[in-house]
Amino acid sequence: MIRINMYTKEVTKEILPDEYFFLGGRGLTSKLLMDEVDPNCEPLGPNNKLVIAPGLLGGTVAPCSGRISIGAKSPLTGGIKESNGGGTAAVKLAKLGIRALVIEGQPQEENLFLLKVSHNGVEILPADELKGLGNYETTKTLLGKYGSKSGIISIGPAGERGYSTATIAITDMEGTPCRHCGRGGMGAVMGSKKIKAIVIDDSNASKITYKDEKTFKEISREWAKELVVTRKGMTDYGTAGNLDAINALGSLPTRNFSYGVFEDADKISGVRLREIILKRGGKLSHACHPGCVIRCSNIFTDKKGDVVTSSLEFETIVLLGSNCGISDLDFIAKLDYFCDDFGIDTMELGVTIGVMMEASVLPFGDQTKMMGLIEELKNDTLMGKMMGQGATLTGKVLGVRRVPAVKGQGLAAYDPRGIKGTGVTYATSTMGGDHTAGNCLPGRIGYRQETKDLEFIKTTEGIVELSKDVQTMIVLCDLCGYCFFVGPSPDTVERTAKLINARWGTEITFDKLIELSKQVIQTEIKFNEKAGLPQSINGLPEFFYTERLEPQQHIFDIPKTALENIFTKN
Amino acid sequence: MIRINMYTKEVTKEILPDEYFFLGGRGLTSKLLMDEVDPNCEPLGPNNKLVIAPGLLGGTVAPCSGRISIGAKSPLTGGIKESNGGGTAAVKLAKLGIRALVIEGQPQEENLFLLKVSHNGVEILPADELKGLGNYETTKTLLGKYGSKSGIISIGPAGERGYSTATIAITDMEGTPCRHCGRGGMGAVMGSKKIKAIVIDDSNASKITYKDEKTFKEISREWAKELVVTRKGMTDYGTAGNLDAINALGSLPTRNFSYGVFEDADKISGVRLREIILKRGGKLSHACHPGCVIRCSNIFTDKKGDVVTSSLEFETIVLLGSNCGISDLDFIAKLDYFCDDFGIDTMELGVTIGVMMEASVLPFGDQTKMMGLIEELKNDTLMGKMMGQGATLTGKVLGVRRVPAVKGQGLAAYDPRGIKGTGVTYATSTMGGDHTAGNCLPGRIGYRQETKDLEFIKTTEGIVELSKDVQTMIVLCDLCGYCFFVGPSPDTVERTAKLINARWGTEITFDKLIELSKQVIQTEIKFNEKAGLPQSINGLPEFFYTERLEPQQHIFDIPKTALENIFTKN
Repeated sequence: MIRINMYTKEVTKEILPDEYFFLGGRGLTSKLLMDEVDPNCEPLGPNNKLVIAPGLLGGTVAPCSGRISIGAKSPLTGGIKESNGGGTAAVKLAKLGIRALVIEGQPQEENLFLLKVSHNGVEILPADELKGLGNYETTKTLLGKYGSKSGIISIGPAGERGYSTATIAITDMEGTPCRHCGRGGMGAVMGSKKIKAIVIDDSNASKITYKDEKTFKEISREWAKELVVTRKGMTDYGTAGNLDAINALGSLPTRNFSYGVFEDADKISGVRLREIILKRGGKLSHACHPGCVIRCSNIFTDKKGDVVTSSLEFETIVLLGSNCGISDLDFIAKLDYFCDDFGIDTMELGVTIGVMMEASVLPFGDQTKMMGLIEELKNDTLMGKMMGQGATLTGKVLGVRRVPAVKGQGLAAYDPRGIKGTGVTYATSTMGGDHTAGNCLPGRIGYRQETKDLEFIKTTEGIVELSKDVQTMIVLCDLCGYCFFVGPSPDTVERTAKLINARWGTEITFDKLIELSKQVIQTEIKFNEKAGLPQSINGLPEFFYTERLEPQQHIFDIPKTALENIFTKN
Repeated sequence: MIRINMYTKEVTKEILPDEYFFLGGRGLTSKLLMDEVDPNCEPLGPNNKLVIAPGLLGGTVAPCSGRISIGAKSPLTGGIKESNGGGTAAVKLAKLGIRALVIEGQPQEENLFLLKVSHNGVEILPADELKGLGNYETTKTLLGKYGSKSGIISIGPAGERGYSTATIAITDMEGTPCRHCGRGGMGAVMGSKKIKAIVIDDSNASKITYKDEKTFKEISREWAKELVVTRKGMTDYGTAGNLDAINALGSLPTRNFSYGVFEDADKISGVRLREIILKRGGKLSHACHPGCVIRCSNIFTDKKGDVVTSSLEFETIVLLGSNCGISDLDFIAKLDYFCDDFGIDTMELGVTIGVMMEASVLPFGDQTKMMGLIEELKNDTLMGKMMGQGATLTGKVLGVRRVPAVKGQGLAAYDPRGIKGTGVTYATSTMGGDHTAGNCLPGRIGYRQETKDLEFIKTTEGIVELSKDVQTMIVLCDLCGYCFFVGPSPDTVERTAKLINARWGTEITFDKLIELSKQVIQTEIKFNEKAGLPQSINGLPEFFYTERLEPQQHIFDIPKTALENIFTKN
């Protein structure tokens, strides 16, 4: 664990405390934040800390275990945050034996810095020449200077400016800064520490060791094989493969969550995306991080075959697409590139623009005016600054009552009225409106007897219990560094116990892992309670309870009382 | 108690429940909100309620007892709110035997309404012709139509637009809409109910009765006599009489709370104000409500003797003055008139503009550019909308870290570093940064043995205890309908017990009244906890703890732990 104080410029290596040992990723970011950060601190002030942690199994051959967790008190929600991303950083940090980078303090000077991480430790270097650059230019410069095999973590102008919706970009295996810890404004926290980028050089890293390498590899190989088969749809169509199903469920956010079916869904669906990519010679089945076997990422090219962006994802396509009345994948791809380069969350931006359309700042579906908004962001105008603060604040300024956001964070691309389990997750997660905290799509089951019962989990009580189970199992994914597409499922928990035991010779059990995950959630709840996001505010915006989602007439009818104590009762 | 449902347009008279009997003013607004409003409701949605209540002694001859309490969940703080004002409304309502108007629901139509309150009850009437009018024009129209003796409660454009800083105006004895329930955006809640104005006609009201009229009048007369003597400074100089003292304490908010002494204090002081008013023939010693014997209000005229505004108060003069680097009373008076007419809180606007100056949107002291900001408000531009949401949101958009606000509400005109008791009140009050919740100016003592000890209340523990005592006694003032200038003092509590007993033949005691006041605070705490403003967030912005206030080097050093549990330990 390496601690970097940006006020004193001191770098200290610390042995990970024993009690942190089984915590990786989100487990570690959340525990560290609880132990070391005042929940009432200013998110962009000197007392917040930015914690970057690979998962517990990061760097190993366990499939899809190379995701990274970046945590801090969020400037967007005001609560604890873990934002999860792909790219090469996690694996490189893990290989260097680094369980966490803890960035604290704040420089007094206005200069920008970069951190150079290698087997020699961490150096703080000047980086003023990168000021104002987008992630693409930043990455290009740094890869040129530090070698194309480096992994880069960086922020764009949004992060430098402290926009609450700023992301942290991470380079993928091709050195493209297209993997983002997108949610909750982690980029603004990094910007507040005046760190433009982190360059990771894992040459001379020592080898990952295993107590029982053979077993570990066997389990991993078998699991990977299964994932390749069961996740073939994702490999072929990307996350957008989901779009038709969500549309069929009448739950596709359309024109600021005012309708559940998009009339032009076929123009932005996974099928369509695949067609375009195959025709133009982009890339499907693209891995977002080393060790990814699901490969749901893609590279999207324009008609001439030039790369526009990577990767075009379901959430982006819906929230900047149907949610804004847009049905043009080329246009959405352009926006996606802008967001990645500028370093702003595509999801929050989509929700924000939807809210602005609701307020008649521009009409739904108006591409020209949407590009105008992008200019406002680029130019840091007052409107740009407002948009940079996200949907909740924008809605407040514009006097919009229908703002699809929870705890300050815009919802993901599943209308909670139709997919109620995900609605419960939005309403109760420590992370604010966030599907990655526990997406409860049809077919999902929990780990307990009752939550494996397909009839029970369709009841109101069952929906709540399912969300709780899925949220718990997701924590385990985030803790291990798995992409959550391996599934927040009992199967994943079981395999994980075996993998951990094979790696360290421990005797960890299914129950123990569940317990560990629950503890992480309890830690986050405690942080949020002190920060002013108590469980008592769990719930969705009023319109989800009062306005039926046409055409399927869905309504969110999970009583508030069931949402307030989801994690307090057993 | 009259309930007005703006959705169904039903008006119902209800007998005040027994348990509410000794609750008036803030006691009643807070209890009703807790009992009837979901703390998580949207402040401007149909589930919030606006409660208007005269004090328990409103309409009687008790001195200074004609203040009104208006309560709702605040769109500014997100918590419970009571905003207190003068004018004639409270006395008229009390004379009509109305303990509270409870306005609930929300019309579906876009039309505006007015409420006509008389001895016949409440009528809901159309008021579209008043749309967009300022409070002055609104009042003039209504007094013309309903008789000059009517009392008018109204909102300006700010309230109609839902600005979180919108006030509710109340006419004074001359029919001028210059008394405002200014804090916490109560005007926006009234606007969300589509009520432009409330006309109160108290002709044919029945006489206030007393169990022991003689004693009641005797106590009142004696108290009034004393107040006339002890508050002479306020009568002569208005609230601005304070300014020199606060400046001498090095605690006068100057240029966005960056300095504690204003070099041009003499140009905006009470002495100067008196000089100008006497010279030009304005009015000093003006009463803000019937029964006021302190008469700290004034009428400010321009050089030609034409009325500019009433009343020019300390908070306005400082927050729109020294806090913005302005030292011109004529200019401040103009802004005050604008705020009263437009229906926006002078204090929140002053803090907001200070924050904008800190962000270099305009230079400190630039009158021309400040008038430009007023145009932005009038024209409802994006900048105007942002300003209308107050200092906290404005600071967020502009990326300002030094935002002097607590729980979303801008601080009053006492820098908490120099006047720490008031700082504790800002940090701990259920109302957000609000001096009226318990201003602890030097000389103030509590009601308990230890808090009467002048040495103890200078210690850290003593400061906290004093604030707690004063906050408790202020509740009693707000509950009775007193102007708090009678003093949140043991003496006031004693006299109040006697007055209540003389009025109703009860045997209420000092301790019982303190207990009652404490219960009100506990009710508010409970509401706020559920609304997401738990006691754990009590505190001041970080810069008050880290940045010394020059030139007297004050710092806020009351530990956060002492602020979190102020009302939970006994």
